[in-house]
Amino acid sequence: MEPMALGRAVARVHTTTPLVHCITNYVTATDCANALLACGSSPIMSDEPMDVEDITSLCGALVLNIGTLNAQSIAGMRAAGAKATALGHPIVLDPVGAGASALRTETASELLDEYGVSVIRGNMSEVKALAGASATTRGVDADPADAVTDENLEQSAAFAKKVAARTGAVVAITGAIDVVADAERAFAIRNGSPLMGKITGAGCMLSCITGAFAAADDGALLESTVAAVASMGVAGQMAQARMGRADGSGTFRTYLIDALFHMNGDILEQHAMVKSI
Amino acid sequence: MEPMALGRAVARVHTTTPLVHCITNYVTATDCANALLACGSSPIMSDEPMDVEDITSLCGALVLNIGTLNAQSIAGMRAAGAKATALGHPIVLDPVGAGASALRTETASELLDEYGVSVIRGNMSEVKALAGASATTRGVDADPADAVTDENLEQSAAFAKKVAARTGAVVAITGAIDVVADAERAFAIRNGSPLMGKITGAGCMLSCITGAFAAADDGALLESTVAAVASMGVAGQMAQARMGRADGSGTFRTYLIDALFHMNGDILEQHAMVKSI
Amino acid sequence: MEPMALGRAVARVHTTTPLVHCITNYVTATDCANALLACGSSPIMSDEPMDVEDITSLCGALVLNIGTLNAQSIAGMRAAGAKATALGHPIVLDPVGAGASALRTETASELLDEYGVSVIRGNMSEVKALAGASATTRGVDADPADAVTDENLEQSAAFAKKVAARTGAVVAITGAIDVVADAERAFAIRNGSPLMGKITGAGCMLSCITGAFAAADDGALLESTVAAVASMGVAGQMAQARMGRADGSGTFRTYLIDALFHMNGDILEQHAMVKSI
Repeated sequence: MEPMALGRAVARVHTTTPLVHCITNYVTATDCANALLACGSSPIMSDEPMDVEDITSLCGALVLNIGTLNAQSIAGMRAAGAKATALGHPIVLDPVGAGASALRTETASELLDEYGVSVIRGNMSEVKALAGASATTRGVDADPADAVTDENLEQSAAFAKKVAARTGAVVAITGAIDVVADAERAFAIRNGSPLMGKITGAGCMLSCITGAFAAADDGALLESTVAAVASMGVAGQMAQARMGRADGSGTFRTYLIDALFHMNGDILEQHAMVKSI
Repeated sequence: MEPMALGRAVARVHTTTPLVHCITNYVTATDCANALLACGSSPIMSDEPMDVEDITSLCGALVLNIGTLNAQSIAGMRAAGAKATALGHPIVLDPVGAGASALRTETASELLDEYGVSVIRGNMSEVKALAGASATTRGVDADPADAVTDENLEQSAAFAKKVAARTGAVVAITGAIDVVADAERAFAIRNGSPLMGKITGAGCMLSCITGAFAAADDGALLESTVAAVASMGVAGQMAQARMGRADGSGTFRTYLIDALFHMNGDILEQHAMVKSI
Repeated sequence: MEPMALGRAVARVHTTTPLVHCITNYVTATDCANALLACGSSPIMSDEPMDVEDITSLCGALVLNIGTLNAQSIAGMRAAGAKATALGHPIVLDPVGAGASALRTETASELLDEYGVSVIRGNMSEVKALAGASATTRGVDADPADAVTDENLEQSAAFAKKVAARTGAVVAITGAIDVVADAERAFAIRNGSPLMGKITGAGCMLSCITGAFAAADDGALLESTVAAVASMGVAGQMAQARMGRADGSGTFRTYLIDALFHMNGDILEQHAMVKSI
């Protein structure tokens, strides 16, 4: 992917200021909203079934995050998912904790099967759980190591492509090395900071930002997802670089939002480390 | 309004340390609680219908914010609203997203019609939606431009006064220029920072602080609401003034709470830009 | 208690990186998650009755915080409490607002009576309400002054021991002076900062951290609870010591997480002020 495509994706978010409807967990909702605002988009959070159809109709994308799912919010996700699908809005699915409970695995799998999910964004364990659960037999896929490393990078890319082919969604598996793939192409992104794992919500924020990037250009979902993932990674590096000796994960969290606020096409093009796999 | 009235309002919050019952959205609840604590008040969040009557009875004011309303919290708002009305507690209504969905418009309208709302705090679009929805015909009022500007300031003040006269509530319409009015008087407040629109919750925090100011002096609701709005605006300016080159909306959010923490009568009297319209 | 016991408790959290299942309020959930991550543990928030049994089974401890309890989360607390009790996991109960509403007092009391609560962490008013409510007659106990002071320290310790003896739980009553007791021993901890009362969530974060410490060593609950309380207090002092003139409660909140992030056995042993009562 040429760097200019990444820069253009960032610029398009600033130009179009998309509204993003988020049904997300209450643990990281504040940070998700602030991340969306920082990157030039606007959040609307709503999970009440009676409310979500009107809300999602106003927006350019829908983000479904099952981090603190409950009976009411699952009903809200279904109603919003159906409406967004009908309207052709991109849907980002963040299967938080898929594999950790039957309810999470089944809910994520159902959302994926029933609605027009455009992007799946999770860690490798979650995407594996989702891939297994969404197979016809609900059996467990072959078990790739959970961490993406230089050694298993090609295997991980092949797995991501396979899930993308099966689901029709762009698949973004994030970790120390991020892998983003559609059915035909896969990219490795080597940005980010280990401190992103020491705060809550780095993944949730990324899923929301991915929704904003998708809304800004839903005709180029692979490019926009790579740009979102790289933006978050570069922001993590910028945040870490500012930290002083007494600073810790609290300050990092604040600086991460600051970095998203200052992100632009030039910064992203200069610092993104994206390679075709 | 004389500056001293503003200073006295801030001081009364510090002196009386009012408890404020908030039924508010989960996106900004943390920041609302921290804003209330920073300005010398204390928050209690509770939205469960079985819990809210006891809780609101202990408090000096009730804030109803429909940002992430759901069936359960709407029931909680009704029960709390009825109790607070019966006790004569000031109620602040923040109609987040009124106009964006039928449920939000109708819920905000119902709360306004059924309970003793003392202050409505929203942006111009929300207050317009609420004003239209609460009219007998549910028709849409004449459409004033959504942004309050020097050009439409008198018209905006007249609109705010009309809503105040119709509802019996003080009306606070916030934006680049804030307008606060009762049926007879209107004030323009020209404090604040554009960065307040780049974080989530500036409006929600203001609604909660307005509740604290109202609880501290419910006999002078217009003055206390102007003081709350001006406090938030001056805090935004103080926060922006501290920012360095790498700081962004993350740091601004932290500094805004810091500024509320340091706010006092002298600072407010010196920096508030309040003019009768 | 010898300082080395405290240092070892901190180290054990870093070594074992326990998963902690939190059913907690939406006001402070973000800060609770970030505090757990900062101290080397990992949070999972889940309150849906259909989800909690699977989730709590994966974890090393369960924290029940009734700060924004509702019908659904109470059902979740019951299901999780029963499962954690069956599995022998330590349970930390934070009776937020017990005494402020009948629902809170009764719910906290029921959770304490029905499930294997290992640690009660609250302020004196909450623990008093809980102690009264859990008595057979539901009468109100003799009324010790709510603030623990040098004057009533022995009386407060005796009260904490009595509650511990009656409930079988370690009791942590926090305030300007913290008291932690089991049925036989009591300790006073004189760390902390007055600013901890000016942010929301200092108590909730402590309850979650107490869960992490308990999970890391559930064979020494008194020691691990004292270590958790002292860690939070020392972190509060470290955060306050960093503050500049314009900093306020917003910055303090960030620095508190930073301090938890940097906490280790050496720092804790050097700064903890723990005395047997």
